[in-house]
Amino acid sequence: MSEPRVDTVLKIGGSVITDKNGELAAKTNEIDRIAEEIQKTKAQGLVIVHGGGSFGHPYAQRYGLKEGFKQESQKVGFSETHHVMTVLNGLMMDALVWHGVQAISIAPSSCLITENGRIKDFVDAPLKRYLNMGFMPVLYGDAVLDTKLGFTILSGDQLISYLASKLHAERIVVGVDVDGVYDSDPKTDGNSRLLKNLTLQDLKKLRTKLGKPTLSDVTGGMLGKITELVPAVEQGIHVTVVNATKPNYVYRALKGDPVEGTTIRKE
Amino acid sequence: MSEPRVDTVLKIGGSVITDKNGELAAKTNEIDRIAEEIQKTKAQGLVIVHGGGSFGHPYAQRYGLKEGFKQESQKVGFSETHHVMTVLNGLMMDALVWHGVQAISIAPSSCLITENGRIKDFVDAPLKRYLNMGFMPVLYGDAVLDTKLGFTILSGDQLISYLASKLHAERIVVGVDVDGVYDSDPKTDGNSRLLKNLTLQDLKKLRTKLGKPTLSDVTGGMLGKITELVPAVEQGIHVTVVNATKPNYVYRALKGDPVEGTTIRKE
Repeated sequence: MSEPRVDTVLKIGGSVITDKNGELAAKTNEIDRIAEEIQKTKAQGLVIVHGGGSFGHPYAQRYGLKEGFKQESQKVGFSETHHVMTVLNGLMMDALVWHGVQAISIAPSSCLITENGRIKDFVDAPLKRYLNMGFMPVLYGDAVLDTKLGFTILSGDQLISYLASKLHAERIVVGVDVDGVYDSDPKTDGNSRLLKNLTLQDLKKLRTKLGKPTLSDVTGGMLGKITELVPAVEQGIHVTVVNATKPNYVYRALKGDPVEGTTIRKE
Repeated sequence: MSEPRVDTVLKIGGSVITDKNGELAAKTNEIDRIAEEIQKTKAQGLVIVHGGGSFGHPYAQRYGLKEGFKQESQKVGFSETHHVMTVLNGLMMDALVWHGVQAISIAPSSCLITENGRIKDFVDAPLKRYLNMGFMPVLYGDAVLDTKLGFTILSGDQLISYLASKLHAERIVVGVDVDGVYDSDPKTDGNSRLLKNLTLQDLKKLRTKLGKPTLSDVTGGMLGKITELVPAVEQGIHVTVVNATKPNYVYRALKGDPVEGTTIRKE
């Protein structure tokens, strides 16, 4: 099987498509708008990953899944967490298919296993074959099996960096609910400054500067994103972080048109 | 990793959980009842597979997916078919998780590829690990990739026989919408006779006797079921076919209690 040509790995943050103050609160209008923007690009070689937002996170947190299997009562929590993620993914798929996109969901928990929280065995034959046939694979943060922990939570951010590296993608587009990467949390710090251009060195410095992730995000917020992006940027993959809640920002980022946000390059 | 002990592979027919005269017509009361029956058994080592009914079949047929990729316009049909199957699976998972069952959906299209319609590469490491941890994997008939055809339709019936053989299951329970296996189609032939006990030899004879599958079922109806069951029965796996639309028939079959239906054994 020939290697598929992958242009972009697109992440849609859970905070964009769900209301993080609610629980199981999908923003269906936003999901539909983003699906339409993706359709409009007529993109080939695009892989999509979305986060868990108010679907995956509250469940994962309630049952302490990220830390692994410790007691029997967590198991039904694992089932619930994966299930609610498939429900959110179903809403995303519904919108994409409705807009005529040849999208195919790939359930991470069905085809990969982590080791101490890091992707270890990813069976990518279906993924690559889908890409070669012109389908658009859609993955998501998920509750997954782990060789050491029993199970854990795999973040969409780990997944985008892993997929972009493995598939030799040209670039990563990260859609979030703020205008890009800031030097501090713009939601709590009124003086935070938007960083428009970052190098790998800047990114590493920022990683040490930024504080702890907000408690409500089991997969690490902006700090988690940056930490995960480092290896991809090291490989020369370009990253654009844009505000996906603003109409046509994802569209323009995918088209390669100028758009407000943060650009991260190796040098 | 040690081999999991699998007692039963349970198939729930699409005609049990959907209205085959409709389209996307789920019988949510039936789904809930069956989920409750499964929960009541407290079964360990159980794998569930469900069919497509009025979700998968009309879409698969409309786009001629079973015969493989022939034209671009089928691709969005492939996306739609897989998507509607995940929707039906989501209803089943919703009911199971609501009843507190540690069920985990495994998307066939995410982890297996067929060759000319037959399962070729099934990455079963997650499946086996779920079973070893005490989870109940739930799979379903699906639109899948095929090395020769591009893509095709995988029936739940092929899946149960394959899984029972591969996992060395003790038995297969097949839940359908009639009282068991008949010597002709009981829905169209008033004189058809219920066959309570069949040997492998009987089964093979019946396979040649039974006519063509009904057109509305892209995966072959009772003839398709029997054809798929032959290799499993050859391996000594016991099969029970029961009417899953009758309350507690699935429960009793799973418990091994006496229940009306058809029993198939090698000799």
